Amino acid sequence: MSSSFGRLFVVTTFGESHGPAVGVVVDGMPPGFSVDAADIQRELDRRRPGQSALTTQRQEADRVEILAGVFEGVSLGTPIAMLVRNTDAQSKDYEALRDVFRPGHADYVYAQKYGVRDHRGGGRSSGRETVGRVAAGAVAKSALASVGVRVMGATVQVRDVKAVRRDWDEVEKNPVRAPDAQAAQAMAAAIETARAQKDSVGGVVEVVATGVPPGWGDPTMGKLDAMLGAAMLSIPATKGVEIGGGFGMCELEGSRTNDVFDGERFLTNFAGGIAGGISNGADIVVRVAVRPATSIGKAQTAATAQGGTTTIEIQGRHDPCICPRVVPVAESMMAITLMDAWLGQRALRGREK
Amino acid sequence: MSSSFGRLFVVTTFGESHGPAVGVVVDGMPPGFSVDAADIQRELDRRRPGQSALTTQRQEADRVEILAGVFEGVSLGTPIAMLVRNTDAQSKDYEALRDVFRPGHADYVYAQKYGVRDHRGGGRSSGRETVGRVAAGAVAKSALASVGVRVMGATVQVRDVKAVRRDWDEVEKNPVRAPDAQAAQAMAAAIETARAQKDSVGGVVEVVATGVPPGWGDPTMGKLDAMLGAAMLSIPATKGVEIGGGFGMCELEGSRTNDVFDGERFLTNFAGGIAGGISNGADIVVRVAVRPATSIGKAQTAATAQGGTTTIEIQGRHDPCICPRVVPVAESMMAITLMDAWLGQRALRGREK
Amino acid sequence: MSSSFGRLFVVTTFGESHGPAVGVVVDGMPPGFSVDAADIQRELDRRRPGQSALTTQRQEADRVEILAGVFEGVSLGTPIAMLVRNTDAQSKDYEALRDVFRPGHADYVYAQKYGVRDHRGGGRSSGRETVGRVAAGAVAKSALASVGVRVMGATVQVRDVKAVRRDWDEVEKNPVRAPDAQAAQAMAAAIETARAQKDSVGGVVEVVATGVPPGWGDPTMGKLDAMLGAAMLSIPATKGVEIGGGFGMCELEGSRTNDVFDGERFLTNFAGGIAGGISNGADIVVRVAVRPATSIGKAQTAATAQGGTTTIEIQGRHDPCICPRVVPVAESMMAITLMDAWLGQRALRGREK
Amino acid sequence: MSSSFGRLFVVTTFGESHGPAVGVVVDGMPPGFSVDAADIQRELDRRRPGQSALTTQRQEADRVEILAGVFEGVSLGTPIAMLVRNTDAQSKDYEALRDVFRPGHADYVYAQKYGVRDHRGGGRSSGRETVGRVAAGAVAKSALASVGVRVMGATVQVRDVKAVRRDWDEVEKNPVRAPDAQAAQAMAAAIETARAQKDSVGGVVEVVATGVPPGWGDPTMGKLDAMLGAAMLSIPATKGVEIGGGFGMCELEGSRTNDVFDGERFLTNFAGGIAGGISNGADIVVRVAVRPATSIGKAQTAATAQGGTTTIEIQGRHDPCICPRVVPVAESMMAITLMDAWLGQRALRGREK
Repeated sequence: MSSSFGRLFVVTTFGESHGPAVGVVVDGMPPGFSVDAADIQRELDRRRPGQSALTTQRQEADRVEILAGVFEGVSLGTPIAMLVRNTDAQSKDYEALRDVFRPGHADYVYAQKYGVRDHRGGGRSSGRETVGRVAAGAVAKSALASVGVRVMGATVQVRDVKAVRRDWDEVEKNPVRAPDAQAAQAMAAAIETARAQKDSVGGVVEVVATGVPPGWGDPTMGKLDAMLGAAMLSIPATKGVEIGGGFGMCELEGSRTNDVFDGERFLTNFAGGIAGGISNGADIVVRVAVRPATSIGKAQTAATAQGGTTTIEIQGRHDPCICPRVVPVAESMMAITLMDAWLGQRALRGREK
Repeated sequence: MSSSFGRLFVVTTFGESHGPAVGVVVDGMPPGFSVDAADIQRELDRRRPGQSALTTQRQEADRVEILAGVFEGVSLGTPIAMLVRNTDAQSKDYEALRDVFRPGHADYVYAQKYGVRDHRGGGRSSGRETVGRVAAGAVAKSALASVGVRVMGATVQVRDVKAVRRDWDEVEKNPVRAPDAQAAQAMAAAIETARAQKDSVGGVVEVVATGVPPGWGDPTMGKLDAMLGAAMLSIPATKGVEIGGGFGMCELEGSRTNDVFDGERFLTNFAGGIAGGISNGADIVVRVAVRPATSIGKAQTAATAQGGTTTIEIQGRHDPCICPRVVPVAESMMAITLMDAWLGQRALRGREK
Repeated sequence: MSSSFGRLFVVTTFGESHGPAVGVVVDGMPPGFSVDAADIQRELDRRRPGQSALTTQRQEADRVEILAGVFEGVSLGTPIAMLVRNTDAQSKDYEALRDVFRPGHADYVYAQKYGVRDHRGGGRSSGRETVGRVAAGAVAKSALASVGVRVMGATVQVRDVKAVRRDWDEVEKNPVRAPDAQAAQAMAAAIETARAQKDSVGGVVEVVATGVPPGWGDPTMGKLDAMLGAAMLSIPATKGVEIGGGFGMCELEGSRTNDVFDGERFLTNFAGGIAGGISNGADIVVRVAVRPATSIGKAQTAATAQGGTTTIEIQGRHDPCICPRVVPVAESMMAITLMDAWLGQRALRGREK
Repeated sequence: MSSSFGRLFVVTTFGESHGPAVGVVVDGMPPGFSVDAADIQRELDRRRPGQSALTTQRQEADRVEILAGVFEGVSLGTPIAMLVRNTDAQSKDYEALRDVFRPGHADYVYAQKYGVRDHRGGGRSSGRETVGRVAAGAVAKSALASVGVRVMGATVQVRDVKAVRRDWDEVEKNPVRAPDAQAAQAMAAAIETARAQKDSVGGVVEVVATGVPPGWGDPTMGKLDAMLGAAMLSIPATKGVEIGGGFGMCELEGSRTNDVFDGERFLTNFAGGIAGGISNGADIVVRVAVRPATSIGKAQTAATAQGGTTTIEIQGRHDPCICPRVVPVAESMMAITLMDAWLGQRALRGREK
């Protein structure tokens, strides 16, 4: 099930970038939770193209339609299906790329894997697939909020500019979605520079969950770290993930990184809220490495389906840095993962939380 | 299925550290492949305790018994079950810890999650669970080798000492399993220092697969990056994973990190052999952050089941740095992940490779 | 994943009877197969209401829209999503039933299971959910046909009238879908009698697959019998399934029911084409017990949500015998099951067939 | 995962008939339940060979060893692994059958499916595989009993002799396991006749669950009927399953088979305790068609691996009717299925029951 994530809260996305629509089916949503189309739309608006000067200018209203699983504003316990039509797909822009494999893109591997591909806008490999994730994530976030779990995300690094503060109220106030107003300006400047050079830049997105009680997540193969890792690395353009102290812990000693629990709280959080694969009650903290966007205007050498090479300058409408738009996707994948873990713990113990 | 990994090549481990045995069931192994107990034993010997001065002195022969799925040296296509008895479990060492939650360990979260736990040696959360992974990994490695895929691993960093070279023939010649003879000595010194201080150190393990053809791995939710990420983060004590350029790419531009494919090969490998979640034919390169071992002899404050705190000095027999023993586990998880991806591609295309 | 069927060819349906739409996502469809909307529509037309005097007069055009996974008429290997809008839902007919649990229906158990339900037309428990199955089944049938596998179904019993012949060319020529022109007339008469009495009748549907090579299906837990059994018993209103000799074999001796294989073919087919859970190359033969439709016009006692009882005469528009419409659904579920088994064997052996 | 059953309570069996051992891993067992090796052994003793004059005389003590998942008599919530050694495997009896495909057996299809097989005693296709199911079923039964659910089974038909009564206390008092002392004698006579003629006979096994609350089981694809159907048809030698009124309902009218619920109880039970795939609180009633045992002493024509035919008279030690030994297996599969449904409902609603 290449297009499904989760075991109990199963999210399956569908759709190609320039096909009729993209969408999602959420199977396993418990009944009786409020599901508000306006909540979902608000999250989609955070992800959609054209929302700021820093993002692609493709114009997609991304209006969500709930097709199933919700009745009189409440989840039925049956699959929730949601649909977003593709309206501004300019497929003819891509006709010249039918037989060209863009560097860094999945064009070549799709051709190798499937023997056939929809070359328009990257087809299934397009970031547009994440529309479904965000719609599902909005449903998950809302349900989690009802038991006191909150999921937040932000861009904490662009190129070499790092956010120093974690002011979550600041995030939606700047187009970079940085939790640090000052850093946000430097990040925006770095992105603008890249755009001016027909280039792109990478960055780091951080997602945090508060209010998760101890006991969520399975040990061994189903560790919460592992599920969150898979969740994040399934987002397009991500190439690394770390939990809590992450790679930085490699240089430290155990006497420093063993989080001391005083019976009430953890004095440090090197574990990032997860011990032995199971939530320990502290904030869950995950950072995701986002590579520079692969669609750039600069001239590049590209292989062709005929076996030769050509030079391309990708026109289209692209994001010079995708971190701001990855934020709601990463939040969504964290929320989906936590829903799954929550339901797993309910199955195991037969309790509400 | 908290204890299973994989969708088509399904590996399920079982066993507590001080229970009668640990083991594994491998379901989905294709028939007709040679399965040699000596190969499996050799890999287990690389993982077992007491193999060098740098590792724990718990003495476990870790003799594997194949219980099912192999007939006259060949896989039957039925589940392969393998068993290793626990023989040197000194459970009484742990009696004093029955009601103590060791810092950094999973003791507290197991108590919270399950309401009951086997406190002896960490029970199920012990690194001993990885015996089953390594046995399964040996089977996977052997099958992959038959189609030209080789999986290699090494310790590439201990504390702040980094391997500069990647001399894979060097790995088994030093107890750190570093691919760089010179760095190995400095790493060993760092580990010895930690041990002398009753402390521990972290590090980084790198695993590489060569010979993977283009087309393995699924897009979107089942990306090969995501599956490898889950595989690595399911290993005890890992807190980060990166593929190819990883976190380092965040500071670069797309014009530099877009791997150019000239029709025959990729000129760089920032993608770490995976584009859009699918193997592209280049080496697959994964690095794993290994935290400092949590069992240390230094005095630490620990919470108790009764709600108070106590001071503990963990006696037992422990590894001051677990990287050398993580190497065969990480290799195994990579091999298991690749087997799964291989079988998935066979299902999709109906071809041998 | 209550709404998904299959492991490699995963079919997930969604939709309530009186919601905006019903639909399906098919994940795991191999790439490169022709997918023709007209083929799918033809199968949906066999299932849709109002197609003959023997079926409900609800008018649904049931026009299918392919939303994803198909490009230029060919499967991409990505999820195929298909949608059918609900257009003739007369929800106000059901307002009086909001708090009534119709006998034989799932109203009561949905209320108990979920605590909330869409009472209109049975909501998710409506036979309308099978629209998605038939759309997915049409895709599966077409792919199977390309490797010589054909799936056929027919009504072989209505009340006590049994088809004697298996003339598959006859099936679509009579509204009962019987493979026996003579029996078809008696069956139709039995159905008309039931309708006249504001009652309903049961029957038996038989599905047969020809051309399945030996080796499909897994042994033990994943037996092809078991998968087909689950497939058939997941269809609304089915309460029994038998393979090959089925219940009739219970009264016979092994010397008679052991199908002799002469090296080329089986001389009998008591096994129904499946031995040890694996196809043996003979026709696969499955029969399904279909209970009398639960929606009847006769006065019945029904419990209410308030804890009392009431008398109801179900108006609406209903099928007096659902066998004719179960036929395409049962064929679809068999085709879906065989696709899954086929892909499983490809994964296991790495061969086209 | 051909050898796994269940989604939340996952039972994976392993082992060949004449390999070193057979066994099972149960993943998903909730923590804190009493697990008593004596209970498990008692169920295995009901399944084991040689228990009465009516069964095979192969002597297997079938002593179970619990390897993992249980600590101080209580389930840990981690995988429970259980092992039974094969001790009386007389493999040389089978040497002559290395290249012979016994009629009715899975020999031929295993050769076709896998290209390699363990010919000794049927290898993996042997009924001996059900040892693991019964051990897992014993664990499930015990847990279900703690919430008031009881699972019972009996042989209700042998050849044309049918049990008239359902006296569950009688079952273990006769070797046929019939719930009717008088019918039991006639059944035993029929079995003895078959044995004397070097032949075998079929029959029907019925399993019933009492105390299941309304709401277990999923609708659509995961219907409880479908899961029980798969469970039963995964048992060797079963070729049919029916729930409640089953095939008999096909001849009736809806006005008779719609179970009336008076607000407290159902006045009839044609639904067999399941409506719309969900338990309705009435007894769950399932009947399973068991074909005549395929191993018979009579001379039979058999195909050979070389492409010709030969005549065989199967010596070995076999059951002339396997119904008595299917009873504990069918009970186990029902208990496993119900455990899975119970945990599913806990996940959905977050309640104990």
